Amino acid sequence: MSDREARRRTQLRATAAERGMDAVLVTNLLNVRYLTGFTGSNGALLVRPGSDDILATDGRYTTQAATQAPDVELLIDRTTVPALAREAVRRGAGRIGYESHDVTVDGHATLVKVLVEAAGGGAVPELVSVGRAVEAQRAIKDDDEIEALRRACAVADRALAELAAEGAFRPGRSELQVGRELDARMLELGAEAPSFETIVAAGANSAIPHHRPDATVLRDGDFLKLDFGATVDGYHSDMTRTLVLRSAADWQREIYALVTAAQAAGRAALASGAEVVAVDRAARDVIAAAGHAEHFPHGLGHGVGLEIHEAPGISPLGAGRLDAGMAVTVEPGVYLPGHGGVRIEDTLVVTADGPELLTLTSKELLVI
Amino acid sequence: MSDREARRRTQLRATAAERGMDAVLVTNLLNVRYLTGFTGSNGALLVRPGSDDILATDGRYTTQAATQAPDVELLIDRTTVPALAREAVRRGAGRIGYESHDVTVDGHATLVKVLVEAAGGGAVPELVSVGRAVEAQRAIKDDDEIEALRRACAVADRALAELAAEGAFRPGRSELQVGRELDARMLELGAEAPSFETIVAAGANSAIPHHRPDATVLRDGDFLKLDFGATVDGYHSDMTRTLVLRSAADWQREIYALVTAAQAAGRAALASGAEVVAVDRAARDVIAAAGHAEHFPHGLGHGVGLEIHEAPGISPLGAGRLDAGMAVTVEPGVYLPGHGGVRIEDTLVVTADGPELLTLTSKELLVI
Repeated sequence: MSDREARRRTQLRATAAERGMDAVLVTNLLNVRYLTGFTGSNGALLVRPGSDDILATDGRYTTQAATQAPDVELLIDRTTVPALAREAVRRGAGRIGYESHDVTVDGHATLVKVLVEAAGGGAVPELVSVGRAVEAQRAIKDDDEIEALRRACAVADRALAELAAEGAFRPGRSELQVGRELDARMLELGAEAPSFETIVAAGANSAIPHHRPDATVLRDGDFLKLDFGATVDGYHSDMTRTLVLRSAADWQREIYALVTAAQAAGRAALASGAEVVAVDRAARDVIAAAGHAEHFPHGLGHGVGLEIHEAPGISPLGAGRLDAGMAVTVEPGVYLPGHGGVRIEDTLVVTADGPELLTLTSKELLVI
Repeated sequence: MSDREARRRTQLRATAAERGMDAVLVTNLLNVRYLTGFTGSNGALLVRPGSDDILATDGRYTTQAATQAPDVELLIDRTTVPALAREAVRRGAGRIGYESHDVTVDGHATLVKVLVEAAGGGAVPELVSVGRAVEAQRAIKDDDEIEALRRACAVADRALAELAAEGAFRPGRSELQVGRELDARMLELGAEAPSFETIVAAGANSAIPHHRPDATVLRDGDFLKLDFGATVDGYHSDMTRTLVLRSAADWQREIYALVTAAQAAGRAALASGAEVVAVDRAARDVIAAAGHAEHFPHGLGHGVGLEIHEAPGISPLGAGRLDAGMAVTVEPGVYLPGHGGVRIEDTLVVTADGPELLTLTSKELLVI
């Protein structure tokens, strides 16, 4: 897959050249993975316009790095970042970009010290922030990434369908039991891991947006909110469905219908070029018009990819516009404290022809 | 449990007072958890000598924070760190400690900006690094922490014993199957999660120190290296055992005996007051004397607690001495590339009366 990663590095080199940087030091490990394919737990990358790129890692990963990233130079040095800074100086870089949102104050001090030492009395290279240049690239998914997300969503869809068919969501069972079965089933179906700590919230707990599953037992008439996802090839799916156990009361049908309508409005607003605040507003207005504005206390959605939360954020405080290739969630909720709550969430990809839905589980109210 | 956390904050306040700080801004989320009991995913803490401490988090965690950390003031503001910096200024702090190993360069710039604004033309408070003061406290475990580690180790011990008894480690199965069963069993036995990505390495793969389980099938005569742990109440156990399937060859018995002897020497050296480099050397010398120095390419061990790797590091490059209450691993290995490798690892606590073993699974060579 080195073509794909080579293309990504070419794009970063162009950014570096535009900004007058002789090299970019990439320290965020997911950015290193994105740009090289290397999945080890220790690594940093030096990208150099007009020259070979260098991946630094430690001796545990010599073989793995050579296999996963065959087209970059390999530097085996457990300190990685200072080692690459020294290499940059040795090869004449005068202006080095770095990820100021990732490097700590201590890490920066170490870098400066290393650069001064490596310059050996000569001109000390300048460190300048490259900002979130790699994250900006990552926000637009290529076909391979969308395919990985599609598979991750399919695993979550299938796990839910199988457990529903097997009667796993029945009164008498605990949130913890249900959560563990969902996680185990996703692993059996090929997930590397759950995307995040699975949320299972029954009854009044469903009114807590981020409830952690506990010994609470599922009972007749409960809402059962399931927020979960699978990781496949490093890419995260994210889906929420809210079921009702045995029989649904009128208030439950009402807020379910409301959240369904808000979620549909949010999905319909997912157009290339749309401002993220407008997308959020499209769903939020539906909930506000029903008098429930204060019962929807979180943003509408977020980007997903190598991280479960990444750019763009879709909320009243968001900035910027959607673009084709962005993978995002749409997840409005209405939570009535002490009673129960509903959230409905899909993962979708923005395309020029409108959103493509990746989580395919039905959003009809399921009384199970 | 607020007494415990209050004691920990008292200790940090004493450090702050010694260093002339009016407040310490704790941003590392595990440090926040350690000092307050709060386990949410967004939070920061302002510790103030001679005054109440303030925990900042966002609206998702209002109830949880109040329950878990009842004895600190609560500030609901999703920006947490800038919000606490403003509070510090409002309450007259002139010199504020911060965690320079945790705050990024961008985060520091935001803090400076907030302080300047909050000072409103008056004297701008000084930001000074408090270093790893909280991590230094965390390196010495109290009784509750040791009990959590003991339970985490017991879960791992039991999962291994049950799977061995059930015949899970037999030729024909894959590394991935074995790894998933180990993980699932630990969860059933009460783990919150595996401590890290479980390592299952069969045959030649056992010579790779950090092999990721794959479709490799277990075969007669293979070494089977299992490196895994359980998380209980946030505390991580860490254990490695290496088995042999069906029948052990002479070379396997030899390196197994060698690693056993090295591991015993390392454990015996775990005394309060011992230099970490001397502990590493005690085990390393045994392996070097047998001519295998270059086949043991990693450190002897590391601290464990709220993180799977924390202070102290026990390696040839380590610094400092062991102290009573430190929880550490001892994990020498000998890896013969292309053939196979053995690692034997325990989690132990250093006490005034010698080390207490927490991982109790036998270290006799198990031919299974």
